Amino acid sequence: MVLPTANVSERLYAPPSLAISTVIFSIRNGTVDQDEPGLGELWLPLVRRTRPPYVDRWALPGGPIAWDESLEDAAHRNLHETTQLRPRYLEQLYAFGAVERSPDLRVVSIVYWALVQADEAAKATEGDNVSWFAADDVPRLAFDHNEIVEYALWRLRTKVEYSTIAHNFLGETFTLAQLREVYEAVLGRRIDPANFRRQMRASKDLVATDQTVTGGKHRPPRLYRFGETEAPQTTPPSSSTL
Amino acid sequence: MVLPTANVSERLYAPPSLAISTVIFSIRNGTVDQDEPGLGELWLPLVRRTRPPYVDRWALPGGPIAWDESLEDAAHRNLHETTQLRPRYLEQLYAFGAVERSPDLRVVSIVYWALVQADEAAKATEGDNVSWFAADDVPRLAFDHNEIVEYALWRLRTKVEYSTIAHNFLGETFTLAQLREVYEAVLGRRIDPANFRRQMRASKDLVATDQTVTGGKHRPPRLYRFGETEAPQTTPPSSSTL
Repeated sequence: MVLPTANVSERLYAPPSLAISTVIFSIRNGTVDQDEPGLGELWLPLVRRTRPPYVDRWALPGGPIAWDESLEDAAHRNLHETTQLRPRYLEQLYAFGAVERSPDLRVVSIVYWALVQADEAAKATEGDNVSWFAADDVPRLAFDHNEIVEYALWRLRTKVEYSTIAHNFLGETFTLAQLREVYEAVLGRRIDPANFRRQMRASKDLVATDQTVTGGKHRPPRLYRFGETEAPQTTPPSSSTL
Repeated sequence: MVLPTANVSERLYAPPSLAISTVIFSIRNGTVDQDEPGLGELWLPLVRRTRPPYVDRWALPGGPIAWDESLEDAAHRNLHETTQLRPRYLEQLYAFGAVERSPDLRVVSIVYWALVQADEAAKATEGDNVSWFAADDVPRLAFDHNEIVEYALWRLRTKVEYSTIAHNFLGETFTLAQLREVYEAVLGRRIDPANFRRQMRASKDLVATDQTVTGGKHRPPRLYRFGETEAPQTTPPSSSTL
């Protein structure tokens, strides 16, 4: 009996094709970690595959790029189709192109990562084939997607230390306590509130507004926002024209 | 008369295809800038296109990815075919995928950037179709390659300020004066030697060897090398398996 391999090897030896994937991070109030009650956690949405390869396995949202779409537009569409969300932060992460990362057709995935606000993420679509998982506790995923999630987590945790991206998990204005909770969720550990306040107030990017939180508190906390100068960036200076 | 447009639009509406391009930086002793004699300059090799589109225009070295090549291997091959060089530093820069960046077939280019040692670059191949240009003074290039060069320059200059990549332009060991000349060439300005020495000696990544430069000097300068801890990185922690 002759096996129908011609078709498979034709695909194997074809030039790599191209796809977009997105890693979408948000933060949930920590009700999961028993050791650290109240410590927030990073969560991300995954999509259950309905076709081979890896049928029924969870995977990052993704798919092909249309002929008339920029890479960033494809990432936005992808993200919106999966979660109905519009992220505050969307950047190119890395292109993953190992030869063996897909079992038959070779695919190079250009991966974008996004940060979405916690209260927006709480409204995001879930269903049989879309579900959110704690980023540090994802199941075994399709393709090399576990490696991609790990890389995105590493980049987020590195970047939080030297830039101001953390505020993209929050709304336009926020209290210092809210901002500290974001840092704690990203880094996975408690941060001393007094030290944090001192450091953040020294940052020239953080701007105190003249508003405070409305509510019943004796001394309502001040609201802050971030200024325009977020450095160092990793996107091209003229990314809109690329 | 019916124009043969069918073929063109078939290609136009096809999914994007994939290519690798490389931006290869090295440093030359500054004999060009009349205002700053002796200030080194960044140079990069370009390839003259022998086929449309943009025939005769200079472009970044690049081409398709073979079915059995990783992205990094394709970048290495590409770089070696163009210049016979093996870089000390090679990293993924960015994927450029604007819809209109190529006139007929849509191509997404995954761009790598490399730093090569000055004395190696001096031996690099030149010919009718490969030539080195001052990075700040390249001609009008094919496709969006001027934007790519500008982005690579911006990344190099940003990264030199917060990391230790500069030493990749030098050999295994080097004097502090040689290292300062690299910083001056990258940043395009003079740096105070005493300040530079102080800053570099405070860096825990720079290691003094017990060697000095051999030669006729009264007090021969000490040779330094870089340690293992180059941070922050932008490559995946396990890039070899990706």
